[in-house]
Amino acid sequence: MGRIICAGLGPGDPDLMSVKARRAVEGAEVVAYFRKAGRAGQARRIVEGLLRPDVLELAMEYPVTTELAFDGAAYNDALARFYDQWAARLRLIAGGQDVVVLCEGDPFFYGSFMHLYSRLRDDLEVEIIPGITGMSGCWTATGEPITWGDDVLSVVMGTLPEDDLAAQMQAADALVVMKTGRNLPKIRRALQRSGRFDAAWLVEAGTMPGQKVMRLVDAPDDQCPYFAIVLVHGHGRRPEVAA
Amino acid sequence: MGRIICAGLGPGDPDLMSVKARRAVEGAEVVAYFRKAGRAGQARRIVEGLLRPDVLELAMEYPVTTELAFDGAAYNDALARFYDQWAARLRLIAGGQDVVVLCEGDPFFYGSFMHLYSRLRDDLEVEIIPGITGMSGCWTATGEPITWGDDVLSVVMGTLPEDDLAAQMQAADALVVMKTGRNLPKIRRALQRSGRFDAAWLVEAGTMPGQKVMRLVDAPDDQCPYFAIVLVHGHGRRPEVAA
Repeated sequence: MGRIICAGLGPGDPDLMSVKARRAVEGAEVVAYFRKAGRAGQARRIVEGLLRPDVLELAMEYPVTTELAFDGAAYNDALARFYDQWAARLRLIAGGQDVVVLCEGDPFFYGSFMHLYSRLRDDLEVEIIPGITGMSGCWTATGEPITWGDDVLSVVMGTLPEDDLAAQMQAADALVVMKTGRNLPKIRRALQRSGRFDAAWLVEAGTMPGQKVMRLVDAPDDQCPYFAIVLVHGHGRRPEVAA
Repeated sequence: MGRIICAGLGPGDPDLMSVKARRAVEGAEVVAYFRKAGRAGQARRIVEGLLRPDVLELAMEYPVTTELAFDGAAYNDALARFYDQWAARLRLIAGGQDVVVLCEGDPFFYGSFMHLYSRLRDDLEVEIIPGITGMSGCWTATGEPITWGDDVLSVVMGTLPEDDLAAQMQAADALVVMKTGRNLPKIRRALQRSGRFDAAWLVEAGTMPGQKVMRLVDAPDDQCPYFAIVLVHGHGRRPEVAA
């Protein structure tokens, strides 16, 4: 009886993978990873050159999404069938050997793996290897600590309504905004409304070749990748006290 | 001319250190790490068995803190002198060779290293290696994803006033509370006021020997270590959509 091992691969630089994840990747006989149809896939890209030559690769390609409305029932049904199907396949294969599922970032932090996990955890042994988050790679790239002292850090998705974004931005000291892309103009307005715009940074491809770090005020609105991250650093609610 | 390399060591399990941090630790001729006087220190414990036999170890021991009020000016002065002194020492040593500063978790996420960084960054090359956060080790230990979909995650310190805590807890979907310890009764009250208490978990020593994972409702108030973490998982603001 095999196991499912979900290896968190970190923010992009293969050297930022944990020792444990690296060992799982290098030893894997079967790997599976999500990707968009027609794309190499970020998780697969991170492990380039690390896999055994005889590894079995399973590319789990998301069903085409651009033809269906994001919130529509048809879209959700298609996704549910997709996860059902891959859960069934992985269950079958893991009956005989370990399967390593490759996930960028940290699997339990906004990771798609949870949809397989919820379908498999009752039948199989599933091990999760945490990873360095993408946001951590991005704030490290800015050269400034994201939080210190008693700062409140809030992580919000750019897909939220503008009013929700503005309220969260106002209530927190440090901010991370993920799922940016076409939501950038809305994120910008919410930052302006909450008085945080001038302090915001945009990081694209954090820790990867092609990394870009800029003040948000200098970023164009129309070329932002979905995985770029907007950051506002905290400044400490009061002087740091030693732990 | 040497560099300062701050190696984020992750949540505690040495195998969760990044490949890059591991390489820096194993190759280091000089390491420095914070610790409380009379304690082994968490960062030092993580690298046990990995250092060169001839490594020079610099234990940066926090000035005694229990005799001074946390918010007092005398306390802040003592800390500032402590950071000044160690910055001067590291600047001197790094004039001749690399110094690896060992930091548990992720250095730019509530890390004490920032106080050395702000004093050294203008004079020396400083490299930061991000790490898996302690909170990530803790939520992975609970066996449940901390966030999915459009969840808002807020990270708050248990040292904040109860009213601030309750307001933040009410506004977020998923929660991480750090700096718990003697603040646990206050954290408990704030969770109750915000309706989040029944869903809260307490994780001690996440990913380390002695790891404890329990519902907060089952945790005693009077034995909570300062570094234990309280978690409330998000449940997705709407169905996850593929990236």
